[in-house]
Formats: sequence, structure tokens, C-alpha cells
Amino acid sequence: MTVAWARGGPDLLVTLDRDAGPLGVQIQDQLRAAIRERRLGAGERLPSTRRLAELLGVSRGTVVEVYEQLLAEGYVESAVGSGTRVAAMPAGGPARQAPGVVTASPSRPADVDFEYGIPDLGSVPLTDWCWAVSEATRTLPTAALGDEHPAGSRHLREVVTAYHRRVRSGCAVAEDAVVVSGFRQGLAFALATLAQHGVRRIALEDPGPREHDVIARRAGLDAVPVPVDDQGLDVGRLRETGARAVLLTPAHQCPTGVALGPSRRRDLVAWADEVDGVILEDDYDAEFRYDRQPVGSLQGLNPARVIALGSVSKTLAPAIRLGWVLAPPRFVAGIVEEKRLSSRGAPGLDEEALALLMETGRFDRHLRRVREVYRARRDVLAAEAEAAFGPDRLHGLAAGCHALLRLPEETSEHAAVATAATMGVRVNGLGRYRFVPADSEPESDPRRPALVLGFGNVTEHQISRGIRTLAKAVRTR
Amino acid sequence: MTVAWARGGPDLLVTLDRDAGPLGVQIQDQLRAAIRERRLGAGERLPSTRRLAELLGVSRGTVVEVYEQLLAEGYVESAVGSGTRVAAMPAGGPARQAPGVVTASPSRPADVDFEYGIPDLGSVPLTDWCWAVSEATRTLPTAALGDEHPAGSRHLREVVTAYHRRVRSGCAVAEDAVVVSGFRQGLAFALATLAQHGVRRIALEDPGPREHDVIARRAGLDAVPVPVDDQGLDVGRLRETGARAVLLTPAHQCPTGVALGPSRRRDLVAWADEVDGVILEDDYDAEFRYDRQPVGSLQGLNPARVIALGSVSKTLAPAIRLGWVLAPPRFVAGIVEEKRLSSRGAPGLDEEALALLMETGRFDRHLRRVREVYRARRDVLAAEAEAAFGPDRLHGLAAGCHALLRLPEETSEHAAVATAATMGVRVNGLGRYRFVPADSEPESDPRRPALVLGFGNVTEHQISRGIRTLAKAVRTR
Repeated sequence: MTVAWARGGPDLLVTLDRDAGPLGVQIQDQLRAAIRERRLGAGERLPSTRRLAELLGVSRGTVVEVYEQLLAEGYVESAVGSGTRVAAMPAGGPARQAPGVVTASPSRPADVDFEYGIPDLGSVPLTDWCWAVSEATRTLPTAALGDEHPAGSRHLREVVTAYHRRVRSGCAVAEDAVVVSGFRQGLAFALATLAQHGVRRIALEDPGPREHDVIARRAGLDAVPVPVDDQGLDVGRLRETGARAVLLTPAHQCPTGVALGPSRRRDLVAWADEVDGVILEDDYDAEFRYDRQPVGSLQGLNPARVIALGSVSKTLAPAIRLGWVLAPPRFVAGIVEEKRLSSRGAPGLDEEALALLMETGRFDRHLRRVREVYRARRDVLAAEAEAAFGPDRLHGLAAGCHALLRLPEETSEHAAVATAATMGVRVNGLGRYRFVPADSEPESDPRRPALVLGFGNVTEHQISRGIRTLAKAVRTR
Repeated sequence: MTVAWARGGPDLLVTLDRDAGPLGVQIQDQLRAAIRERRLGAGERLPSTRRLAELLGVSRGTVVEVYEQLLAEGYVESAVGSGTRVAAMPAGGPARQAPGVVTASPSRPADVDFEYGIPDLGSVPLTDWCWAVSEATRTLPTAALGDEHPAGSRHLREVVTAYHRRVRSGCAVAEDAVVVSGFRQGLAFALATLAQHGVRRIALEDPGPREHDVIARRAGLDAVPVPVDDQGLDVGRLRETGARAVLLTPAHQCPTGVALGPSRRRDLVAWADEVDGVILEDDYDAEFRYDRQPVGSLQGLNPARVIALGSVSKTLAPAIRLGWVLAPPRFVAGIVEEKRLSSRGAPGLDEEALALLMETGRFDRHLRRVREVYRARRDVLAAEAEAAFGPDRLHGLAAGCHALLRLPEETSEHAAVATAATMGVRVNGLGRYRFVPADSEPESDPRRPALVLGFGNVTEHQISRGIRTLAKAVRTR
């Protein structure tokens, strides 16, 4: 019904539905909306409670409660002798449906997506995960549902370090571990802690994982590039940078796929001792090595100088956001403090679930299963790449879920990527992984054009199709 | 068996257990440990593969593999003509069991714990949560197991903003929302974004939540105190600070328990318009109001100037670490970028589970249930406090899970807290919530001694016992 408002203001439509919940709430919501949208203007006097109750056919008490609520919320004001008036609403007041995040421009979804770093999402052990969450709710003591120890679940820290000792030849113990919500969070905490310890410059692999330079700068560090060759990070060049910290992917370099060579490993560890330095080990893809047992973690080689970072984003799923930092004792308190002040940490129930998954062997069983899936995809990729591009074009296949496809020298990486996109194949050029000096754009190396092929989340059939399409894209450029 | 090592080095005990898994792995582990612990020194030559195979009674191929692995990991070196030698190990090399985090000093666990901010952990709806996680794994599209939209699950953002509109009188939509891993993370992202927008100073409630000053300073903001009285934050004093941002707990002030008065609400919103300012609303305890419907969120009153922060730590459990930031459009992209670069975000499976919990009414049902639990505890607390301390000593009981107990003027807060601790009752003095100027210690206000009583996670019986003990502690000081 339409209420004739006091003092010649606009009539207001108040619609009451006797079947739609408390009448007072309905009145309140409609008045609130009217005030927000300025259908009732500032200073306008509301009808008396008695009058509005009569008009709407509700009890006066209901209207009194409505007015009190709006008064408490600041929508109306009340003064002795002058009744209840609409309060002045701020300039930005009216409700709006303004767009917040700009979503990515609509483009053709890829038929074949060689995006880097995505595991096989169809293989995520969801049944095991549900079992583990349920078991966690059943077995966790009630007190563990509260705020956890800032370093994270003791149980998970024990299980993760035992796993790291067993599978990665590490030597960390629970006291060295901090549970985080994934690799990036661990990296941010570690970098901030290094900055607190007086580290000013960090060396990054070039090419290397994207955005680590941005993340380093956010932590207050100067980021400098060090080239990567077929033995991994060039430690000689690292020495020249004057950096006292380095971040690298020794098990399976991102994006070239090489493993850090044995002499480089030794040299790197020696460098850290020489400069009183710190090695941040992104223990990426270490679980998936096909030609031999995985090379051990650098952490086991020099625990006093290595901060090892791991997560389950690649082994389980990005949607289970758990990771860990294994750090020398002098850094642990700093990392814990970063965690405590910036987020309080990871979800306790999920932490316990992951600990149970690992402890009961379900995690290992899952890894064995997906390793075979990846091995089959890798074999198809190798065969198709050789058929389409000739021999020795595909590199970095000894481990992990991505490889590097070297294109003929005269090829334009940008053009190949763009042409492939129009043909339904999404892939990144090596140029996207080049180190970006602050305030500039990444460039591809015109001498060595290459594509980074993530094969974690594409089927064998998609790989065949995708590689053949890429070969066409390169030819038709 | 003990292996006579080459060149007169120390004998090395290598123990093989034919039932304990691959022999190669056993040999490898023991050699690695021996090198780390310097039982095999740098430069020492290892026996030939043939010789070691004979000594240990294993195939030569096994030993070759062991040596190759140790070579790849940098534990040994190999040169043509000189066999395999132990590599030089770095100074910090040997494994150690050094303590990392210093755990809290062992003290008597409290019989009654009035710690602030802990919900009833015995009431956490674990069965509902398991249902929701299981349902999420069943219904989420496979692609949603990968890296999510940096703002968080679209579904949860829709559900949370609908909830906030319905229950908190807000007017945010999904595009305004960013999912975070709890209040603190949301606060850190919001503060960093404000700093990017040129905000230099933020006002904080005094007394107010602990450590927010530290968190603000970490974001590069100057933090200044504004006093709180029985109407909440003193907006007149806020005006004097010159700050362009304020963080406050309007629904149930932490720790005094007052709700921000109606005229203060209006004045606060007017202040924000005057100074082109921003209000950070810690929408704490809003769900639990006993005397009337909860007062609406400030966000609904001035969506262009309010950033509302919420989480499920108090409504479900701290172990389910999810929260949200509802922000004016101009800040959303900055908050998303903070999230993306510092942690990539919240666990997708948990986000979907929470969306399902809210959408199916299970969340509301849980709140109705625990509201009755808290109401009963509150009534016991009020009765016991009056019996033990006299009338009008307990304040801030209209909402939430904590109250303020004013002590007689001559009482020492510190002494009361310490004496209570020896009697098995843990409680915080109001002084702990006082604003701490940088580089100084918090002080209690000698004129108005008070205790902050969290009653979310104590039984009615514990409340009775605890209050009587506190009365004794105050008398025996």
C-alpha cells in the first residue's frame, strides 16, 4: 500500500506480505531502502508511530521497534517535540551495483590448455580428502578447533618434515617447520624475514617463475636476475651479483625443466657459506621425476643455509591451500611472527586432514597413481613433438609436468602464441618467464624462441591435437 | 655390517635389513647420513662400486645407482681416474635438532579460561561441515579445483553478500567482496590498499583489539588512538587526530562491549565524508545480540566509505579460516592484488563448503543454537557477577561473548589477574587492550580497573566457579 508521508513528502510504497515473515522487518527494510535511495530525503519527518501503524494495519509496537532500529542504525534522528526525521545521508550513500573487479575479457576458451603449473584436476583424490576431513573432525581434540599454534598444527609439522626427510632427503624437524597457505605465502613470509635480517638483495632465475620479482620488491628486496643454462642456475654469475639470497627451482627448473647439476649444487652451497647467504629452495615438481629417483632437497645438504618451500598445490590441488616453510632455526621465529600478524594462518581442520592423508599412505598412493598419468602424457608429448617439430626440440622432460619446446630460430614466439590462440590452443612463450626489470615489459629472446608446455591438466588426446596445432601455428605465422 | 672404507678412513657401519625395503635406498640413506655427520670426511674416496657391492652382498648395479644419486645430490664428486670422493660439505652441514620456535613456558593450565574471542568450541557444527565439504567435492566443477579467481569463489562471494544484506542490512554485492583467510588477513590487505591510496594515518579505538596498532604500522600507516566511552568511539576526538581512516568495532566494542550510539554512527559517517575518509568496520560479534535485533552494518549506511570485514572464526570456529572484505569499488582491485601477490588466497573447497552451509540454512540454524548457549552463559555471568561484586559492575552484555567487569577503584588490575592465575582462572585486564604507543608497554588505567571476561568457551558451571574465584582474588590482593 502507498503511505501518504508527513509534510507533503513523496508518497512511499510500502508493500506488506503477510506470508513473508515478520512485518516489522519488511517495514524496516523498505524504509531503509527508501532513505538510502533518497526517496525519503534528509530532514523529512516520518509519520508518527501511531499513524503509520494505522496506515499499515500493524500494531503500534511493531512500528516503534522499527523506528528504534532505524534510529540505532543512524538512518533517522529523533528529537523531543519534533518527532522522527530522516537523518542526513552521506554523499556516497545510495546503493549501487558498481563493478568491482574487472573480469578477464571474454575470449575463446581454449580447447587445449598448456597453461603451466596446473596438476591433473581430474585426479584430485576427493574421496580421500573427504575421508580425511571427516576423520579430522572425529579425532581432533575440541581445543584444536580454536586458534592454533602460530607455526601451525604440530601434527602436520611432524608429518611434513618426516615426509621431507623420507622422500626428499631433508633433515628438518617439526620445530623448523611453519605451515602456510601455499607456496606464495611461504615465500612472502620468508622474504620479509630475510629483509628483517638485513638481506637487501635477492637473485632470481632468468628465465624463472613469474612475478617473483614483484613479490621480492614488495618485501623490500632488490631483485636481480641470474641466467639459467642447461645445468640450471649459473652460480658463477650469481657470485657477481653481490646478492646474499637466491631463490631457485633446483629439482625441475621453471620454466626450462633442467635439474640443477651436481657440481652446481655443490657450488651453490659453497657460495651460501662464502657470502653468509641464504638459498630459498622452491621444491617444485620434485615428486614427479621419471628417469630416476628424485634428487634430494638442498635443505638436506645445508640445513643452516637453506629455506625449503613446498606445497600441495601441484601434488593434490590448488583448491587445498596448504604449504610449508622449512627454515634454519634463526629464521623460524621471524617467519612465525609474519604469519601471526598477517593472517594467523592456515585452517586447522585442513591441516589435520592433510597430516592424516600423508600419515596413512594415501598421499603416497595418490602420487604413485598420478605419476603414471603424467608419465603417459609425457611420452605422448615427446613422441608428438618429435613427429611435428623434429628431434631434440623438447627439453626438461626428466621430471615434472611441463617441458620446453624450442622453436626454429627464425620463429616469432609472440606470433606463434597468438596464432595458436586463434586455433584454440593456449600456451605461454618463454619470454613471459624472462626477468622483468622494474617498470619495463618482458621480452622474448629473439635468438632462442621457445614455448612452455604444461601437460599436467591435458589428456593424451589433447596433447596430440595441441602439438599438431602448434606445428601449424608455427608454420602459418 | 661394517665396511672397511678406502684409504684408511673410518670404518663405516652399514646395516642392511633385507625386509626393510630396497637395499639401494638403505645404503644411500646411510651414506648420506655419514657424510652429513662427517663420519666420512671431505675428499675421502669411496670404495669402488664393485668392492662395495661385494662387501654388502648386493648387485653392483645397486651400488652404481646409489653413487649416481649421491653424485646428483652433491654429496660426492667423481673425476675420471680418481674414483668417487666425498664432496666438501658446508660449515652448517651436519643435521641438528636445534629448537626453532620457543614454545610458551609451561604454566598451570587454567581451570576456567575467560580468554577473549574464543567461541564455544564444543558447539562447532562438525557434522554439518563434513556434509558441506563432501557436497562441495561432489558438486564443484573439476576446473574449480585449480587456481581460483583471485577475489575468491564467486559462489561464496554471492552467498556472503546476500547474507550481509539480509542479516546485517548491508548493500554490498559479489563484485565488492574479496574472500580472505580470516579477519586479520582482510585487515592487512585493506590497510595495504589504503596506504597505496595515499592514506597515511589510521585511528584506532583505545581501548581496542590488541595488535591492530602493530598491524597498521606494518602496512606503513601511522596509528593514533581515539578514546572509547559508553557510546563507543568518540568521533569528536577522531576529528582532532587528522586521520583519514578509522578502524572500529561498532556492533560490540572490543573490549568494553558497548555498541556505537546512533548519533555517533551518523557523526562517524559524516566525518568520513568531510575528510574524504574510510571507515574499517570490524563486524565483530554482530550475530550475537540479546536485547534486540542486531544493529545494521555501517557498510549499509555509507557503502562508498566503509570497508566491512567479517569472518567465521567466531560464528563457526577459528579452525575454519575464512573471512571476507566488502569494499567500495575503488579499493577492490587493490585488495585483490594484495591477496594475489601475498598468498593467492583461500582454499576453494572450503569456500564452496561455507557457501553451501550458508545457502542451505545450516549456518543460520547453528547461529540460533549457539545464541541460546551464549544467552544462558551471559545470564549466569550477570547473576554471579552481581552476587560477587555488587550491582552495575558488569558492562557490555547486550551482545557478543564478552563483557567488562569493573573492579572497585582501589583494585590493582595486574594483581587481580596474577592472583586469579594462581587460583586457576585465566583472565585479561583491560590494560592489555590499551593503545600502545610505539616502543612502550601497555599500562592499565589506575582509575578504572576492569577485567575482560570472554564467556564464549566456558560452561555455566565454570562461569560460576570462575567469578567466585575472581572475587576472592580481588579481595586477597
